[in-house]
Amino acid sequence: MRPISFLSDFGLTDEFVGVVHGVVARIEPELRVIDVTHGIERGNVRAGALALLRAIQYLPEGVALVVVDPGVGTSRRPIAAETAWGHFVGPDNGVLAPAVAMMGGASAIVALEDERFRVPSLGGATFDGRDVFAPAAAVLAAGQAAITDLGPVLEDDSLTPLLLPLVEPEGEGIRGEVWWLDQYGNCQTNVSPEDLEALGVSPGDQVTVQIGGTEYDVPWQVAYGDVEPGEALLHVDSYGLMAVAVREGSAAERLNLTAGHPVTLRKLA
Amino acid sequence: MRPISFLSDFGLTDEFVGVVHGVVARIEPELRVIDVTHGIERGNVRAGALALLRAIQYLPEGVALVVVDPGVGTSRRPIAAETAWGHFVGPDNGVLAPAVAMMGGASAIVALEDERFRVPSLGGATFDGRDVFAPAAAVLAAGQAAITDLGPVLEDDSLTPLLLPLVEPEGEGIRGEVWWLDQYGNCQTNVSPEDLEALGVSPGDQVTVQIGGTEYDVPWQVAYGDVEPGEALLHVDSYGLMAVAVREGSAAERLNLTAGHPVTLRKLA
Amino acid sequence: MRPISFLSDFGLTDEFVGVVHGVVARIEPELRVIDVTHGIERGNVRAGALALLRAIQYLPEGVALVVVDPGVGTSRRPIAAETAWGHFVGPDNGVLAPAVAMMGGASAIVALEDERFRVPSLGGATFDGRDVFAPAAAVLAAGQAAITDLGPVLEDDSLTPLLLPLVEPEGEGIRGEVWWLDQYGNCQTNVSPEDLEALGVSPGDQVTVQIGGTEYDVPWQVAYGDVEPGEALLHVDSYGLMAVAVREGSAAERLNLTAGHPVTLRKLA
Repeated sequence: MRPISFLSDFGLTDEFVGVVHGVVARIEPELRVIDVTHGIERGNVRAGALALLRAIQYLPEGVALVVVDPGVGTSRRPIAAETAWGHFVGPDNGVLAPAVAMMGGASAIVALEDERFRVPSLGGATFDGRDVFAPAAAVLAAGQAAITDLGPVLEDDSLTPLLLPLVEPEGEGIRGEVWWLDQYGNCQTNVSPEDLEALGVSPGDQVTVQIGGTEYDVPWQVAYGDVEPGEALLHVDSYGLMAVAVREGSAAERLNLTAGHPVTLRKLA
Repeated sequence: MRPISFLSDFGLTDEFVGVVHGVVARIEPELRVIDVTHGIERGNVRAGALALLRAIQYLPEGVALVVVDPGVGTSRRPIAAETAWGHFVGPDNGVLAPAVAMMGGASAIVALEDERFRVPSLGGATFDGRDVFAPAAAVLAAGQAAITDLGPVLEDDSLTPLLLPLVEPEGEGIRGEVWWLDQYGNCQTNVSPEDLEALGVSPGDQVTVQIGGTEYDVPWQVAYGDVEPGEALLHVDSYGLMAVAVREGSAAERLNLTAGHPVTLRKLA
Repeated sequence: MRPISFLSDFGLTDEFVGVVHGVVARIEPELRVIDVTHGIERGNVRAGALALLRAIQYLPEGVALVVVDPGVGTSRRPIAAETAWGHFVGPDNGVLAPAVAMMGGASAIVALEDERFRVPSLGGATFDGRDVFAPAAAVLAAGQAAITDLGPVLEDDSLTPLLLPLVEPEGEGIRGEVWWLDQYGNCQTNVSPEDLEALGVSPGDQVTVQIGGTEYDVPWQVAYGDVEPGEALLHVDSYGLMAVAVREGSAAERLNLTAGHPVTLRKLA
């Protein structure tokens, strides 16, 4: 019996999350389900994939049930993938790919087609989270089925990838983008401290952050406490990436940023 | 030991939901509580009743704890009802009635009056979710009490009903109403596919959806994938009812709909 | 094995709450975690402390994990405190103090400094909820460590207090303030019914509620049902304190109140 970690864009207004918990409990009442988050923006596959990627190393090995699925009712495949961490269950639209890759790749991928492990439809559209993904996750977590029982095996390398941008040199700086704006307005980029250090920038230096046509000079500091309340800083965040933050404030508002925004960092001239 | 499924209009901003979980855990630490949803609009008994009705068949048999209770502090009775599914605990204001009826009706109904199974008041108004309903649900789920221990038995047929509209013929069409707008703006009606088929309408046909003085022509399709992103469709939803949706969009916004809105469907002339 | 009750200002949009659950489950999969609320206003230590104070007597004895921490990254200490109720884990910024005091004070307080009970950093800022507080709560709840294993013992009286206002006589009335506005707009004050009774005011009387330069006359009633829908009442709320409410409405909107607002109550002349 292994735990299920459940991440979706279902929100908490309707009963979708609760019904998925119910389907799991009807299959095996002793299963634990951790709600990673259900606050992913509706249908935002990249945001879901990045949240899973940030979380996965902190989640107990078992089953990841991931439903961010703008293509429900189209031909994208519902799948399960087996990795060293455990099983990933969700749509094959890229949402699983980065976390599966971080866990060393999939040793088996199946399409969730076996009707024995689906909740029978009420005669209309499928609610795949409830009818396909939840029962697959539950039987895998409970050890009631092997992954190969759930449907035909696909080629190991066939997981649909998610294209994630790489950082690139730009003049005397490095160009990346905003990966993630958290609800507090902290802006995580895809730039690592090593990227900056390769440019001769060190903690304590002033850094020019260029966003569109605007430039901001912010200090690279270790902790929020190193600047005054209301001031901006560049720091290595708790995931090891360069992030722009405002102490007791919102960097997203201050710098007018959105996720996916290009950003260039260079040492203040 | 059976699980509790908990549905309310408490929201998640305050600690109301957590305190109910705490009361349950103090009575029996091993009890499982599934949060069905706490996002029901405040005091909207009909919305709570319909969410419970949609969810109940997916929830594990046990105890349903349902607190949508605009009449707290008035004379409405707190009750528990025994059914083939398990026990329903909540106010007798109609919120329980449709789900109890779907489960074949109640074999016993009691008023929750026995002080032994209430959390002692702090001297003011009762927070019935915490002080009356949660302990009743917990002792029933844990098997610490029989339903008849909780208070006087009421007549079996005495559950306050919830009046739900029926569909009616209107000209060459059928008149129903919007049951439910989910958070994505999908509009579930109370019209079944059989109702439409009785009018000679079939999947693939164009259907005229009349709302107030406005008419929309939308295709009856099986899946979102059958229309382009941004286009509307009529389909049988995952609960087996006719629903208007917009692929990757909001039908509620597009058609300017609210829950309870009358809607007439007929074959496009 | 004791349950953890988890209260924070993390919100539910990002995966912060889920990651904390994951860290706990990786340490001991059988631990139960009750989410008290994660809806505390960001960094509002007083709101977090009052929510914990209201909830604590309803939570099962065990470990309270409390993360409202505007000073993360500054010199405030991460601590654990041992009380008759169990352990409190969080920042030493006042958020724990009122609940610890209600439970009779701390018999031991330690600074969470032992690296064995921290999640190793990814090389940047600490996410203390995930890396420091969650593992400390988990090992205490699981009985894997004694509180004195977690770091150096501090003086028993060294918990940073939270200054909470007292009520004061003002003319023929009593001056207090708004403790808490719940999400429905109910306004709990720090005035007790005994305070009012000492002024000769009794249930059933009309009371003048003075807020800034404005006065409202509202009846002291026992229950919402004693006034008509839309009418205001003063009542002893379910925590035993005087509160202003509007039946099926929002007293916060009606009286234009915010948390911390001074309010004077006196018998209607």
